[in-house]
Amino acid sequence: MARTHITHLTPNTTGAIAGFVATKRVLKSVVFLIVEDRTGSVQVTVDRTHPLAELAVDITPGSAVRVAGMVTANPAVKLGGIELRADAIEVASRAAPELPIDETTAPERQLDWRFLALRRPSNRLVFEVQTTVERAMREYWAEHGFIELHSPKLMHSASESGSETFSMPYFDLGHAYLAQSPQFYKQMAMAAGFERVFEIGPVFRAEPSMTPRHATEFTSVDIEMSWIDSHEDIMQFEERWLRHVLGAVRDRHDIEVPVPEGPFPRLTFDAAHQQLRDVGHPELDPAGERLLCGDGFLFLTDYPVELRPFYHMRENGLTRSFDLLWRGIEITTGAQREHRHDVLVRQAKEAGLGQSVSYYLDFFKYGCPPHGGFGFGLARLIMLIMNLPSIREATFLHRSPNRLTP
Amino acid sequence: MARTHITHLTPNTTGAIAGFVATKRVLKSVVFLIVEDRTGSVQVTVDRTHPLAELAVDITPGSAVRVAGMVTANPAVKLGGIELRADAIEVASRAAPELPIDETTAPERQLDWRFLALRRPSNRLVFEVQTTVERAMREYWAEHGFIELHSPKLMHSASESGSETFSMPYFDLGHAYLAQSPQFYKQMAMAAGFERVFEIGPVFRAEPSMTPRHATEFTSVDIEMSWIDSHEDIMQFEERWLRHVLGAVRDRHDIEVPVPEGPFPRLTFDAAHQQLRDVGHPELDPAGERLLCGDGFLFLTDYPVELRPFYHMRENGLTRSFDLLWRGIEITTGAQREHRHDVLVRQAKEAGLGQSVSYYLDFFKYGCPPHGGFGFGLARLIMLIMNLPSIREATFLHRSPNRLTP
Repeated sequence: MARTHITHLTPNTTGAIAGFVATKRVLKSVVFLIVEDRTGSVQVTVDRTHPLAELAVDITPGSAVRVAGMVTANPAVKLGGIELRADAIEVASRAAPELPIDETTAPERQLDWRFLALRRPSNRLVFEVQTTVERAMREYWAEHGFIELHSPKLMHSASESGSETFSMPYFDLGHAYLAQSPQFYKQMAMAAGFERVFEIGPVFRAEPSMTPRHATEFTSVDIEMSWIDSHEDIMQFEERWLRHVLGAVRDRHDIEVPVPEGPFPRLTFDAAHQQLRDVGHPELDPAGERLLCGDGFLFLTDYPVELRPFYHMRENGLTRSFDLLWRGIEITTGAQREHRHDVLVRQAKEAGLGQSVSYYLDFFKYGCPPHGGFGFGLARLIMLIMNLPSIREATFLHRSPNRLTP
Repeated sequence: MARTHITHLTPNTTGAIAGFVATKRVLKSVVFLIVEDRTGSVQVTVDRTHPLAELAVDITPGSAVRVAGMVTANPAVKLGGIELRADAIEVASRAAPELPIDETTAPERQLDWRFLALRRPSNRLVFEVQTTVERAMREYWAEHGFIELHSPKLMHSASESGSETFSMPYFDLGHAYLAQSPQFYKQMAMAAGFERVFEIGPVFRAEPSMTPRHATEFTSVDIEMSWIDSHEDIMQFEERWLRHVLGAVRDRHDIEVPVPEGPFPRLTFDAAHQQLRDVGHPELDPAGERLLCGDGFLFLTDYPVELRPFYHMRENGLTRSFDLLWRGIEITTGAQREHRHDVLVRQAKEAGLGQSVSYYLDFFKYGCPPHGGFGFGLARLIMLIMNLPSIREATFLHRSPNRLTP
């Protein structure tokens, strides 16, 4: 049975649609069904005298149906001024009566019945936009010679620090740990001569945080580039890439999203502190970040050594590192990495890391180009683009310390 | 320092390259370094009388270097008839003497030092091709209205059967299980009205298999489509999509890969058995599959119920399912799924599955369109395209029961 997308229905032609019954209204002389597919919704009309009337009256909201009939212009119909006068209705799958949630249901229960919540067009749009975002990211990477990476999520030791890592028994090898980030492996790709890599994939954090910005599993977006001169090269790449991504969202969707024209402002960590002290806000905390950043983008650069991991490259007590803030929220952490084996070994030792990162230190033993990169959580970016209250709404199925279902 | 890709070096101009020292030859009057980047390799020449000679003599193979100088045509040089006469050499990272592997090292030790093995152009090409393959897959999906999915890898129960699943303690919720496939969640997306989805992401199998075709973690390629009439719709989609993908590999790389013109042949499971019996081979085992398939593609369809999972749609004791074979190896399993709640519940019960899949059965309670899809391991496809001996060489970092490193 051929199928017409609902937005492609044309008056005075026959149409065969397929979708969910969003609502049903049974009147004295007629039954109205609003049927939705991914493109839109349409009113299906069945006269009570029509042989299909009994079936239409009996349909439950939520049911998956195919409907064929004549498309008729009807100015009285709110949905685009057309209705589909049904000649055939097939109930492919009948919904149980009484859907367990509607738009007014509390957030946690919305997550319990996520697949029903996702049927609402505003929720599905989040994932249409996410699809555009990832497509635009990869377009830009492809044009700039990046190789796609799928780094392992099962590791023989914790990827950066052992404190917030999931672990499990693994055959005769003791335990395996779930990767907190692809950090070490994308750097390995630099030692392997891949020069430029990207990965979009899951990462796992066993932290008990329950904030609107945290999850125990999320989709991480990561790049790494060789032969850079400093972290400035990475920031320049990121701002051009993000402009391309936000431009694609603006072009392909009916969404207000700012696309900055030029470079993003940069502020060193020290200068940021000074600015905040000048306005009587002594801390570079989230509220301070919001003060500095406003509604736009801001690179905060050159963090002190003690705030950054051992593998960031150091210079005069600072690191060649940056955070990118947008709308007051940190969306990216990036840096030039230390690629010199002797320096890196010393920094690892000072951080109290020894045996657990020895396999990582080996990556730098046989030559490695200077390199750097960045990583961030996809859901944070989507949350900010779509003005969502939390990353839960920007994630297909949220995972937190108290949620493993559905 | 601006950088020229090695393949872009032009005689009688200055060039500044960056890469690894592949080999060094110290002669009486001259030092030759072969330097490689992602695009190619070039001979760097330093006269022993040049101020850089001492540094050049001292360089270790594997070191990451920048070299600037004059590009000179020299018909005596095997690598493209040019050499770079160095005016400046910077050792960005010096390799320790004696690389632990070379091309003759045994396979397991190659995996131990994977980042060094990956420096060989033939190995890196595997991932250049993989990048093209995934890009072409997503191009085709984008043109056909697919939404990108990132389904959770942490689950509260085993995704299909409990026997081969990794599990770990998870806060106060008991245990979490690692997803064996995104199967249940891509079907959830159908119940959510996403209509067409794809996912490329990791899956985890705790099976102790050690064959050249198995891994405990691999990258799975999955799609699911709504409003199909049968598994034939899925097969038609897959063969067109694969033609696009193989065509992209042929167009973008210098690789012999067959791109079939029309539909792939189809053979039912029963007919396949009959054909094999006729040639005296009673079993549909790997050798039998090879006999049927030859060097091309073959859809084997309509498997008996007892060979398929409970969620495949059934018809007359058979399932609406298929495998796709290529070069005698199974690369895909696909099917139309059972979307009718009552039928699915019955089939789950018959399979002895109850409480553990109840959340999955709920997806079908409130209406779900007819749908189907397929899934397969990316590395198998890459292995076949590149004629590699095993999926280990087609995987960035292989994971097996006896390998969690590097």
